[in-house]
Amino acid sequence: MSNLSCKLSRLCYRNPTVSLPRTSAGVCKCVATSQDSKTDYKTAVSRNANMAKLQAGYLFPEIARRRNAHLLKYPDAKVISLGIGDTTEPIPEVITSAMAKRSHALSTLEGYNGYGAEQGEKPVRALISKTFYSDLGIGEEDIFVSDGAKCDITRLQLVFGSNVSMAVQDPSYPAYVDSSVILGQTGLYQKDVEKYGNIEYIRCTPENGFFPDLSKVSRTDIIFFCSPNNPTGSSATREQLTQLVEFAKMNGSIIVYDSAYAMYISDDNPKSIFEIPGAKEVAIETSSFSKYAGFTGVRLGWTVVPKELLFSDGFPVAKDFNRIVSTCFNGASNIAQAGGLACLSPEGLEAMRGVIGFYKENTSIIMDTFKSLGYNVYGGKNAPYVWVSFPGRSSWDVFAEMLEKTHVVTTPGSGFGPGGEGFIRVSAFGHRENVLEACRRFKQLYK
Amino acid sequence: MSNLSCKLSRLCYRNPTVSLPRTSAGVCKCVATSQDSKTDYKTAVSRNANMAKLQAGYLFPEIARRRNAHLLKYPDAKVISLGIGDTTEPIPEVITSAMAKRSHALSTLEGYNGYGAEQGEKPVRALISKTFYSDLGIGEEDIFVSDGAKCDITRLQLVFGSNVSMAVQDPSYPAYVDSSVILGQTGLYQKDVEKYGNIEYIRCTPENGFFPDLSKVSRTDIIFFCSPNNPTGSSATREQLTQLVEFAKMNGSIIVYDSAYAMYISDDNPKSIFEIPGAKEVAIETSSFSKYAGFTGVRLGWTVVPKELLFSDGFPVAKDFNRIVSTCFNGASNIAQAGGLACLSPEGLEAMRGVIGFYKENTSIIMDTFKSLGYNVYGGKNAPYVWVSFPGRSSWDVFAEMLEKTHVVTTPGSGFGPGGEGFIRVSAFGHRENVLEACRRFKQLYK
Repeated sequence: MSNLSCKLSRLCYRNPTVSLPRTSAGVCKCVATSQDSKTDYKTAVSRNANMAKLQAGYLFPEIARRRNAHLLKYPDAKVISLGIGDTTEPIPEVITSAMAKRSHALSTLEGYNGYGAEQGEKPVRALISKTFYSDLGIGEEDIFVSDGAKCDITRLQLVFGSNVSMAVQDPSYPAYVDSSVILGQTGLYQKDVEKYGNIEYIRCTPENGFFPDLSKVSRTDIIFFCSPNNPTGSSATREQLTQLVEFAKMNGSIIVYDSAYAMYISDDNPKSIFEIPGAKEVAIETSSFSKYAGFTGVRLGWTVVPKELLFSDGFPVAKDFNRIVSTCFNGASNIAQAGGLACLSPEGLEAMRGVIGFYKENTSIIMDTFKSLGYNVYGGKNAPYVWVSFPGRSSWDVFAEMLEKTHVVTTPGSGFGPGGEGFIRVSAFGHRENVLEACRRFKQLYK
Repeated sequence: MSNLSCKLSRLCYRNPTVSLPRTSAGVCKCVATSQDSKTDYKTAVSRNANMAKLQAGYLFPEIARRRNAHLLKYPDAKVISLGIGDTTEPIPEVITSAMAKRSHALSTLEGYNGYGAEQGEKPVRALISKTFYSDLGIGEEDIFVSDGAKCDITRLQLVFGSNVSMAVQDPSYPAYVDSSVILGQTGLYQKDVEKYGNIEYIRCTPENGFFPDLSKVSRTDIIFFCSPNNPTGSSATREQLTQLVEFAKMNGSIIVYDSAYAMYISDDNPKSIFEIPGAKEVAIETSSFSKYAGFTGVRLGWTVVPKELLFSDGFPVAKDFNRIVSTCFNGASNIAQAGGLACLSPEGLEAMRGVIGFYKENTSIIMDTFKSLGYNVYGGKNAPYVWVSFPGRSSWDVFAEMLEKTHVVTTPGSGFGPGGEGFIRVSAFGHRENVLEACRRFKQLYK
């Protein structure tokens, strides 16, 4: 500490690279900081080797980074984002009014509440059970309300721990693989095949109708399965899901079924894995209000862990999930939960169907555009994502070409796994005029 | 699957133990469930050994369970909860109005937003930096807005991984130890000493003024330190925190400093670890709006990870925390963040100080009560918790005695670690009339 006063005097000349509050009250207190010894001091704590395995940035922040770089290059460009799958349409008033009402109530003695149950408010759990799992034998006690499916995926991984093996669809939403890497379930990233060791990648491509021949899939403890799928937009049929449940049962695996887009299904495909006989003994389901009600920023989702699902020693998985939720989480915001209740009222459901219907019209416009240009186009029917094939081309190249020449942000398929190489995911979340304009630009570029 | 149709026919007679929605639309779909084979089928997935190490339930749900059992036994009792530390006073209107306004805005084209930055909205980060870290060299880019300190503790543990060693104050808030167990940093629970293996328990008792002789503390990678402390209510002085920072620096440790009660400090003790010279190279700070604005149900907190904090290989801890926040979290609710902005407006700050002042008056009432009864009482001055000594008695026995004879819920000190044995934590979060009534009952019981 001998040179502290020396450091102090230097620090009173504020280092311009350090971001300090513009309006700072009072005098400079001159605490010692490390700006002048940035390269000197390191702790003795080793970096977590699992974190070091992760590749580059998480996909969507990386896309945001490239989008921002593009904006710097073309400050006047009208950039349209059909990229990260972010909802754009206002939340129906029947829902926001309920949230505003709950907010105001928190200023009253009668309406105030503090900590809620970590598992969610009882009426919300009950209404989710009734709305989405009526007749499927999923009770309110099986439902855990959360701040979103993405967050629940990590909480599920905390339940499983580092000694499980896992499978994912390839391509798939990156949070499954990345959270598995973080928990230490995987080996190192193998650059040549663009895969992590010890993950079973289940290739889902047009060639197999986006559903694998399960006889060729290795057994794993956990199987992540998303339907309707992000990014391919395909949704599994009842027969396929029955095969999946039988496969899990044969192998003693647990399916983590992501149904965050289920309300986009307009045919007879199952909206929940629990429509399949026996699924409660082998499956967890996670879902979300994000893409139904535009709750991507409000944050509300849920996960179903049936009491029938047991570890090999007979211990209920739900009990461990409950413990994680109680220890590592404190419940979703009570205001968001008031929004969830409103979403599931008759008026709220009607309004959500309206929002979903609007995005589905966008999907049709995007699909028609690429079809008219001669591209093979997948997904779309039961999902807000269109999966466009650019055979023989690098996804990131096509992404860059679209951004450079049309100022439209999409998502490169390879960001979802090696099975996504050669594809671009175009999201249907956008204002109508933007979707139309983006499609006009695509038609000019690829005519 | 041969006996599936048999199962189906039986299941159409609904099992009364299964909770089904009362108003279920349409016919019974007769899916196969496992109620009739509950003990038959188990997956082949081993239960996570770390989860199996955890003892009983998480403390606060366990207290809620006992409270509910008491209510069943005495349905007419007026039970008063000074237990789990849950805020009771309404949120000031200047804050709830802002949240209501943001809710309504989400129904407009101009006011709608979807995914926000996972790290929090820029104005919120900037205002937290300006309000709490002015002149401390903590910029908005060092601040990660979250859904609460408890959730951030697990996210920090995910950064550290399973190969670090950790120390906690004993007694301490149970989430530090429990999340460490879940991540696999600890050994088994040792019933005889009521400690987990491989955790350094730093005994903090009246004998050492609630601050340890650091020369007797073993080196660990991570040191959890909470001041003002939950549960003891003590707050560390500038000299003590300077010792702590020097201790960490000498050992190359990382301090996780929980400052969730800092605004309760009314003397010159530091409100942030970053008031201590050099702390940015060795410390993370986590904090929360919960106990300032009554946001226990709204959910908003933040964590500061200074860019100067480096792992032994020179990699910035903040980069890995950013990756965890991006991959395992999707940002705090935008409505809660609007509340956070309002909290930090001049009117909001004034209102929060009013709420805190009210709880501090409660604290005085509780302290005076136990002092007048001849008990040794600690904490209180800079914290909303009063730590009452019941020498030679079991905490759970005193907890049970108080509940049985006064219908007041408190928290047994031993729930916070073996160092809490013989103490009761009385929370000052309560309506004034309830605090007064609880104190009247305490006076009757212990006169």
